[in-house]
Amino acid sequence: MPNRKKPETGRKSAYVARNRVAILKAALTVFAREGLEATMEDVSDEAQVAMSTVYKHFKDKQDLIASTTAYAFSEWESWVQQQISEVTDPLEQLVMPMRIFLRAKDTHPEYAKLVAKNFGVVGQILPNLSSVISDQVIGLNKLKVLNVESPAIAIQNLLSVLVIQLVNQTLNPKATTAEADATIRIALAMLGISDAKAKKLTESKINL
Amino acid sequence: MPNRKKPETGRKSAYVARNRVAILKAALTVFAREGLEATMEDVSDEAQVAMSTVYKHFKDKQDLIASTTAYAFSEWESWVQQQISEVTDPLEQLVMPMRIFLRAKDTHPEYAKLVAKNFGVVGQILPNLSSVISDQVIGLNKLKVLNVESPAIAIQNLLSVLVIQLVNQTLNPKATTAEADATIRIALAMLGISDAKAKKLTESKINL
Repeated sequence: MPNRKKPETGRKSAYVARNRVAILKAALTVFAREGLEATMEDVSDEAQVAMSTVYKHFKDKQDLIASTTAYAFSEWESWVQQQISEVTDPLEQLVMPMRIFLRAKDTHPEYAKLVAKNFGVVGQILPNLSSVISDQVIGLNKLKVLNVESPAIAIQNLLSVLVIQLVNQTLNPKATTAEADATIRIALAMLGISDAKAKKLTESKINL
Repeated sequence: MPNRKKPETGRKSAYVARNRVAILKAALTVFAREGLEATMEDVSDEAQVAMSTVYKHFKDKQDLIASTTAYAFSEWESWVQQQISEVTDPLEQLVMPMRIFLRAKDTHPEYAKLVAKNFGVVGQILPNLSSVISDQVIGLNKLKVLNVESPAIAIQNLLSVLVIQLVNQTLNPKATTAEADATIRIALAMLGISDAKAKKLTESKINL
């Protein structure tokens, strides 16, 4: 494969990368606030960069939306990894991120709104969430902690529950954290986790 | 309460009701095809009635969307009641409509598309679906066929799974009916139904 462009290194590439992140942060703010109808111009205004700079990084709005969703998810995910770094029980390692996900309205309000108000992006985050949970479930199957016969479908179902509940938690002012946890407790039955165990896994206190 | 308007009776009222249904049918076609961005004018064109007639029945687009969704759901629901009229097993009476729901892409394609492409209407059909399933689950609890501790949350979870899977079945050309049935089989764990029983309930043949 011909090397079309020298990779950017040193100070210039750090500057370019910072610019890219600044645009992604601005896009997240704008799309969360105004929905996906917001324009590239709204994003360039928010980021305080020229339109040409936005287009240098993202070829069109579709590209910007996809990149913003991926960026918001990966930011959230690294943060979750820190939050659960001291969790050692393998089932808790599976369930805690689900409980934290349903608290995104408070911890990552723009990400929660991006998902809740723009259902189209759900299709983009599902594969990410899915692969994270899938690896864990397969691992737990091997350890005989779980015995899930059709992991792919069980996980898809679990994610359906989580995503719809995220929307509920974000948009419905009456939704409570207790309801979020109860949702997960019941959904864990689809992984063959007993209700007694599911109750224990979802009732511990979370400090974020 | 003062009687503001004499109820319309006889031939005239039958004519008005027919007109209303014609507009709802046209709106379903238009919204399923073009999404909720379609205009009142698109609907009046499709229904071949004057715009003033559309506005006589529906005060604005929001009203028309809500009425179309309610109409499509109630049409689907009465049809389902006929389909399951000979089912006598109480658990099958619960599960069969779920399996039929996930076949809407083939039996009621416009309804399926209306839901799949316009996620906003999901919020409108969930309460309808929810009350139907809720009555059944409470009945089955009384009969001791089921023993669901938190029916409201279990049903909400079940509906999340069904709705996301309806979208998948409608928009993803690779989705299969077997996958739809497997989805339900696994989701039934949330009602405390054993996998053996769930398998049996979801593998019988359906002729629609």
